[in-house]
Amino acid sequence: MSSLPSHSSQSAVTVIGLGPMGRALAGAFLAAGARTTVWNRTPGRAGELAERGAEIADSAAEAAAASPLTVVCVVNYDASDAVLRADDVAAALKGRTLVSLTADTPARARDTAAWAADHGIRYLDGAVMTPAPSIGTPDAVFIHSGPADLYAEHAPLLGLLGGTHAHLGEDPGRAAAYDVALLDIFWTSMTGYAHALAVAKAEGVSAGELAPFAQGIGAILPPLFAEFAKDVDSGTYSGAINPLTSALSSIEHIVHTSERHGIDASVMRAAEALARRTVALGHGGDGFSRIAEVLGRR
Amino acid sequence: MSSLPSHSSQSAVTVIGLGPMGRALAGAFLAAGARTTVWNRTPGRAGELAERGAEIADSAAEAAAASPLTVVCVVNYDASDAVLRADDVAAALKGRTLVSLTADTPARARDTAAWAADHGIRYLDGAVMTPAPSIGTPDAVFIHSGPADLYAEHAPLLGLLGGTHAHLGEDPGRAAAYDVALLDIFWTSMTGYAHALAVAKAEGVSAGELAPFAQGIGAILPPLFAEFAKDVDSGTYSGAINPLTSALSSIEHIVHTSERHGIDASVMRAAEALARRTVALGHGGDGFSRIAEVLGRR
Repeated sequence: MSSLPSHSSQSAVTVIGLGPMGRALAGAFLAAGARTTVWNRTPGRAGELAERGAEIADSAAEAAAASPLTVVCVVNYDASDAVLRADDVAAALKGRTLVSLTADTPARARDTAAWAADHGIRYLDGAVMTPAPSIGTPDAVFIHSGPADLYAEHAPLLGLLGGTHAHLGEDPGRAAAYDVALLDIFWTSMTGYAHALAVAKAEGVSAGELAPFAQGIGAILPPLFAEFAKDVDSGTYSGAINPLTSALSSIEHIVHTSERHGIDASVMRAAEALARRTVALGHGGDGFSRIAEVLGRR
Repeated sequence: MSSLPSHSSQSAVTVIGLGPMGRALAGAFLAAGARTTVWNRTPGRAGELAERGAEIADSAAEAAAASPLTVVCVVNYDASDAVLRADDVAAALKGRTLVSLTADTPARARDTAAWAADHGIRYLDGAVMTPAPSIGTPDAVFIHSGPADLYAEHAPLLGLLGGTHAHLGEDPGRAAAYDVALLDIFWTSMTGYAHALAVAKAEGVSAGELAPFAQGIGAILPPLFAEFAKDVDSGTYSGAINPLTSALSSIEHIVHTSERHGIDASVMRAAEALARRTVALGHGGDGFSRIAEVLGRR
């Protein structure tokens, strides 16, 4: 191992979970010269990492005991709980720091923070907002929540993962709240794109023909997102340029064209129902942003 | 009128429909020095345009007779038919060119093209992909369909509207097909954003706090749209980086978080049902793009 970069004991980290994202995280730590210990429930995932110098632990408890900081990134908190909430693992983590980059709901993140506190484990909860190939590059985006001082202590080590890192607040559920909201935008948009490609194809337009125009639509979203957020935070919902009734008219054309081709329009039908409900509440002259307010009414 | 820019009889155009978009179109033609005649079913919309030199016709037939090219931009083809399919208007348009920039379904566009052919009217069908304030600026995006030679003949005049213009093919429904597909992406995405803001707010995250991250999501969509289109056109649906089962897990977190706060998750529920159906068909290891293929199956 003499050809590996040298490292101090401070830059030692454990990664639990070796799916595509876990492997990318461990790989980035290794590339940055950190002493990296890995463990995965199903063995056989660590081959390439071991060649690059990772230590492979024999158990989750051994992995947790190997470093002052353990990053866990598995499929969800059911999987995470199954690994972490064993007596030997909790004991190994006691007094150390656990950073969960596992995606799940804010409620599960808060529950895990409470469990960690009960077991004397210092806990940060975060989310990775970009795909595995971005890890270790400037494109990676991480969000974190939990105690600010704990985050500050580990920010240099987490920074080895590359990209940008934001600490969003002390509430351990806050990173998951952002994550869920951002994935909501992402997966709804991707569903719309999948549907649009199906409708386009039925109309004789290939995906490759539509894509450059779809990219144009993607490009106009960010500034609209900013405007729309101002509407929502200020409680003004200006429909001067594009009233909800006009959006509803477009939505009807989409539903009609889709269903005429026998293509399931259930997602757009649900959007249409929301828009109709908002118009029926007297907001037809408002902008589409009014829907966020109506959805949030209790 | 001596202070107005001079113009040849070639650069003469009629605009029918003076909603926000129609007024923007007429305003751009005027700004470019075209002799511009306008008409709107409800009078009183042309005041500012008249001050800028527009001629206000007394009837749709008079408007159509005033120029070799008439652009119609009203709320939908019901409104368009009500204006154009009168005997005197059809007679006035005979031998002239009609460009419909009214948004509706591809089927309605083709039906209007057939009506125009029956009445000896030369017909192009297009769509404006950007909001009214973009008209006359480099940001405007127009798409057109119909006979290529007819488009070529009028491209210089249409070019006075600014921005970029694309002729998508001879099928008169083709611009509307692109329009519907692109609006599908747009309105589905905006619905997802509205929902995300409602969920974020319930979690104590303001719209202004979420917006910069939402803009980041918006920014990653265009390259993903291009990749996804390649998957769909080639019939490969690689889930190596992000399999559908993983997307479904995220979607479940979104639905759960939303409904836990009593927020209607019907749009995401519909997306979830599509994803589940696609997984049930044996495509859980494929990428999300497989949904486009499954939606398109007949």
